[in-house]
Amino acid sequence: MADSPDCDLKSLSPLQLFERVTEQGEKVRALKAGKAPKDEIDAAVRMLLSLKLSYKTTTGQDYQAGLPPKDLVLINNGTTKEEDEDLVDPWNVQTSNAKGVDYDKLIVRFGSSKIDTDLINRIERATGQKPHHFLRRGIFFSHRDMDQILDAYENKKSFYLYTGRGPSSQAMHVGHLIPFMFTKWLQEVFDVPLVIQLTDDEKYLWKDMTVEKAYEYAKENAKDIIACGFDINKTFIFSDLDYLGASPGFYKNIVKVQKHVTFNQVKGIFGFTDSDCIGKISFPAIQAAPSFSSSFPQIFNGKENIQCLIPCAIDQDPYFRMTRDVAPRIGQPKPALLHSVFFPALQGAQTKMSASDPNSSIFLTDTPKQIKTKINKHAFSGGRDTIEEHRKYGGNCDVDVSFMYLTFFLEDDDRLEQLKQAYTSGELLTGELKKVLIETMQPLVAAHQERRKQVTDEIVKQFMTPRKLAFEF
Amino acid sequence: MADSPDCDLKSLSPLQLFERVTEQGEKVRALKAGKAPKDEIDAAVRMLLSLKLSYKTTTGQDYQAGLPPKDLVLINNGTTKEEDEDLVDPWNVQTSNAKGVDYDKLIVRFGSSKIDTDLINRIERATGQKPHHFLRRGIFFSHRDMDQILDAYENKKSFYLYTGRGPSSQAMHVGHLIPFMFTKWLQEVFDVPLVIQLTDDEKYLWKDMTVEKAYEYAKENAKDIIACGFDINKTFIFSDLDYLGASPGFYKNIVKVQKHVTFNQVKGIFGFTDSDCIGKISFPAIQAAPSFSSSFPQIFNGKENIQCLIPCAIDQDPYFRMTRDVAPRIGQPKPALLHSVFFPALQGAQTKMSASDPNSSIFLTDTPKQIKTKINKHAFSGGRDTIEEHRKYGGNCDVDVSFMYLTFFLEDDDRLEQLKQAYTSGELLTGELKKVLIETMQPLVAAHQERRKQVTDEIVKQFMTPRKLAFEF
Repeated sequence: MADSPDCDLKSLSPLQLFERVTEQGEKVRALKAGKAPKDEIDAAVRMLLSLKLSYKTTTGQDYQAGLPPKDLVLINNGTTKEEDEDLVDPWNVQTSNAKGVDYDKLIVRFGSSKIDTDLINRIERATGQKPHHFLRRGIFFSHRDMDQILDAYENKKSFYLYTGRGPSSQAMHVGHLIPFMFTKWLQEVFDVPLVIQLTDDEKYLWKDMTVEKAYEYAKENAKDIIACGFDINKTFIFSDLDYLGASPGFYKNIVKVQKHVTFNQVKGIFGFTDSDCIGKISFPAIQAAPSFSSSFPQIFNGKENIQCLIPCAIDQDPYFRMTRDVAPRIGQPKPALLHSVFFPALQGAQTKMSASDPNSSIFLTDTPKQIKTKINKHAFSGGRDTIEEHRKYGGNCDVDVSFMYLTFFLEDDDRLEQLKQAYTSGELLTGELKKVLIETMQPLVAAHQERRKQVTDEIVKQFMTPRKLAFEF
Repeated sequence: MADSPDCDLKSLSPLQLFERVTEQGEKVRALKAGKAPKDEIDAAVRMLLSLKLSYKTTTGQDYQAGLPPKDLVLINNGTTKEEDEDLVDPWNVQTSNAKGVDYDKLIVRFGSSKIDTDLINRIERATGQKPHHFLRRGIFFSHRDMDQILDAYENKKSFYLYTGRGPSSQAMHVGHLIPFMFTKWLQEVFDVPLVIQLTDDEKYLWKDMTVEKAYEYAKENAKDIIACGFDINKTFIFSDLDYLGASPGFYKNIVKVQKHVTFNQVKGIFGFTDSDCIGKISFPAIQAAPSFSSSFPQIFNGKENIQCLIPCAIDQDPYFRMTRDVAPRIGQPKPALLHSVFFPALQGAQTKMSASDPNSSIFLTDTPKQIKTKINKHAFSGGRDTIEEHRKYGGNCDVDVSFMYLTFFLEDDDRLEQLKQAYTSGELLTGELKKVLIETMQPLVAAHQERRKQVTDEIVKQFMTPRKLAFEF
């Protein structure tokens, strides 16, 4: 591959260059081992040196065998992870720290940017709205190119929002609401179209589940998403199993991404192996393609260059790093991103909530009694062992799950600050803090259930029908 | 993977079992190398022995490292091919023998069955029609499960035909007509529906070509296919780029195949490497899926169990060996196959004709003059060096390309036999034989061009519109 004349080195991404150098190195070794003619070996060595030079020019780093370019460092491949590093990929979140994942480190490792006060103020100025408490409290903490979205927005150039969900079960938990609550706010303050992908094909490929079951879950999950209050005139929800077979524009973008990503790349990014099925291996292109507006000709009138903004939990970033790597090579704009922290399990912030462990989560179907029991029984406490000690030394909000949940769901900043001070000082006991959480979550879940009841199959069908939205392009 | 409890060994195909044994062997080696605890090594060894036993029970062969089960022998991976073996895969046909590929050997290597006189007689009895000269002359020479198709047909159980073409260029050559001429005959004598896949996505992935260009070629090639005389009421032609985005049923079958084929498998079958793009790696599922009737709900009324018969050149067999391996695991019937020999290049039977070398082929767009010149100038002759020698020793029909072409296109058996005897005896000179070929090909190509002119864009659109055909299911 390295000496094929159809490839211009300048058009290659750092990761592709890295691979070319690696391959050429292997070729040289093979030629030498096979005692090939000297001129053939010499030519291969010259090519290797020239590739290494291109690599250095492009990345500013010397080529090092086994060490891909820094921007695309392997974050989820156990073999390259350092001992004390958090494990974060689309399928796993693990840390040994009770405070949760070290997000500042993650920003450095992922090469994204911190959402700082300047950016939050700029969002406030651009939209004329008080920033969402997820922004104010660092729950959405990292971004890629959000400044470019704002540059364009200030120049009256619109964009669209894209987020999604993998429908792995019928029941969603409160953590699943985070991206949707925030996306709804973004849609309202920016007044832009929104597409929501339900990756039922992914769940079919990864889980022991039929195609029919995965599609059923997608429709059930759509009800919970719609119950967040999305505007039907501005939002398109789609199941992959459905929409991929209903939109040639979508498939064309998928196949374009699939042409520009090698197995080596998905192996590096997602840790796939030779024993993985070819469906998993090609799936990343299906999550990438909605980042390009031509996947939705019915919404964008076939326009190819509408900028996309993706709010998501940071574990989804590997998909979009890959997408951003491919975008310029298929003539598309790179999607921008806003990353959230993980929603912790009731048992503690070492891992995120999981739909498959009923006790790790407060489900959207839980009764007030179940919510109360789960919080009282399972919510990890940052309080002291005895009331006396607690009064004396105070509780630890950094590891207390009840307090963490309140930062997500208690909108009143003053109240939250009061609780923090009272708990830290020892004035407020664990049981009292849990009571506040119970009283916050019970009406929130009940209200969601009430809204969900209103979402008929007919409404789901309307949201999932490809159609024009209330925007002109 | 080998000790994962979610996998029932009995449900695995021979190739999957082979992989499990290989993986487990590697695991044992790794454990030993890593000086793992003895009980861990012992458990892994026990698992290895049990897997080897399962492999032997299933395949009737002892496991041999590096040697996959016989039914799926690696035929197109240069490293396993024996020195004197022909190279035959979807992208290459090469032999060192001027008579062409050794098809009897290929039947043994591929594990297919020879189309013998009994089978040809049975087709004649079932259809009440004289067998096509492609059958009588061994041009379609190999099959899989054709007897089952006939069993079912005799019991009034219908089937459908599936064939296809990769639209790599605008111009098709006469060799491309072979599967379509034969498929047309099959459709007429059995009176069954036919689907024709144009793999424009494959051409986009493999060639330096835009998506738009590949789709344009697909529509142009459809014109040549339609000009063969297919019945619009019984035939559906589709471009992947178009139909994949227009049929959820098709995509669902693709994703089902993709779940049941690993990278290891496509690596073994097609010789893919880690540097190949993920589009190539997952493509085989797209060629597999039309073998299942549920990919065409509009034709088969959503029915899943309609048997499929695929007439194709034998180089396409690797796709369908894979499909037949997967079919029972996704609850679908295995497609049956009829394999043709390759159409030789004008220069000789060592390779098949290629659309990219204009002199290797007679194109469907060639003028009578071009046909004459190409045959006279390039058709490899089995004649002798001088007229005297030719008269004395006779010509060799086994390597003479003009004679080979006549076996494809001269329908009159008696005339062909006369020519053979006259050429072999030396009575007929090379120039005279070439003249017969020119006089056969010129009207054939002219008639094709005349019919093609009648094929309007509107007719192409009709053929390519998903719709009900003139059959009830």
